[in-house]
Amino acid sequence: MDSPHRYPEPDREALYRVIAQRRDMRHFRPDPVAPEVLQRLLWAAHHAPSVGYMQPWRFIRVSDRALRGQMHELVEEERIATARALGEREDEFMRLKVEGLLDCGEVLVVALADGREEHIFGRRTLPEMDLASVACAIQNMWLAARVEGLGLGWVSIFDPERLAALLSMPEGARPVAILCIGHVDAFYDKPMLEIEQWAERMPIASVLGENAWPG
Amino acid sequence: MDSPHRYPEPDREALYRVIAQRRDMRHFRPDPVAPEVLQRLLWAAHHAPSVGYMQPWRFIRVSDRALRGQMHELVEEERIATARALGEREDEFMRLKVEGLLDCGEVLVVALADGREEHIFGRRTLPEMDLASVACAIQNMWLAARVEGLGLGWVSIFDPERLAALLSMPEGARPVAILCIGHVDAFYDKPMLEIEQWAERMPIASVLGENAWPG
Repeated sequence: MDSPHRYPEPDREALYRVIAQRRDMRHFRPDPVAPEVLQRLLWAAHHAPSVGYMQPWRFIRVSDRALRGQMHELVEEERIATARALGEREDEFMRLKVEGLLDCGEVLVVALADGREEHIFGRRTLPEMDLASVACAIQNMWLAARVEGLGLGWVSIFDPERLAALLSMPEGARPVAILCIGHVDAFYDKPMLEIEQWAERMPIASVLGENAWPG
Repeated sequence: MDSPHRYPEPDREALYRVIAQRRDMRHFRPDPVAPEVLQRLLWAAHHAPSVGYMQPWRFIRVSDRALRGQMHELVEEERIATARALGEREDEFMRLKVEGLLDCGEVLVVALADGREEHIFGRRTLPEMDLASVACAIQNMWLAARVEGLGLGWVSIFDPERLAALLSMPEGARPVAILCIGHVDAFYDKPMLEIEQWAERMPIASVLGENAWPG
């Protein structure tokens, strides 16, 4: 049966389209992001679910160019260290563009708030639910960016303690994302790692089981 | 400047509407979920981003009623333990409905795949990025459920080791969500925890800083 709460067909189709067309972008144009658009993206993030309604997300807008440069250096160090750790795929990894920090219009750092240990509801059994909530917020923002025609890339190749120190975060806070947001020439047709033949999408049947583990 | 890649106004509006109207549901009707709708929700989840394209999400559809009952017992035990841990808010917590496992049309368990330690790209610096990817997948599914007119509730009050054992998960796998999915009489006007006066939405200004920690 169809639900009486179902959205009209064009609205449903719009959601599935944005899910299909969202990309983790690494190539940006330097044009500025309109402040009201950035506000809408933050609104989308702030309307994510959070366990026990703890709203554990914190955002730092990095408009200071010198700070951006220092963040880029942190990422670059870890990019090289990651390539080395990959061994035989080192060269292949080094050819991938993993961030657009110096090019994009806006940079946001997303962090887990300090004081999260006070939240017993939802964190007693699965303490990592705070991160899950923050990731839901970022996914909302990612989809919002796509409908606004903006690219967003989630950079996670950095040392969280050094980034926390650089941004003078309070003790207990933990950065989990550097988001590059901005205009793009074009969105990738497929996920960049598929285009670059780094990996392929798994068949859905291989991630789904019935009353048992898949496979 | 507006992006040439921007979606038309009705499509943008549809996305912002579904973000605003998505709810963490705990009250369900028992009517079945159409198989093709469930497939669309899984498609949405499987089109989430994942660091290094690792696609770490695994789904178990629980159609076995006896298994569902055993899962409900696991949740009930932890619900009582969580209430006790809350101390002075124990009674208030016990009055909240935290899951709809026995009522909803479909139950999906979502888990982190085993073998994730092989993924160096994206997990060397921030190993928790696997969970972040799974949470993005669940958020996609949540929004898709809303446009289909279905409720979804993410239950995280369970002992992950016992749930893994109950479902015979391989070593290294970790369940992070029991999703209750199904028809509902109505969606809550506001987040249930706001209606129940458990917590309020924070002002967006208090989660946002410029070049510095918010506040």
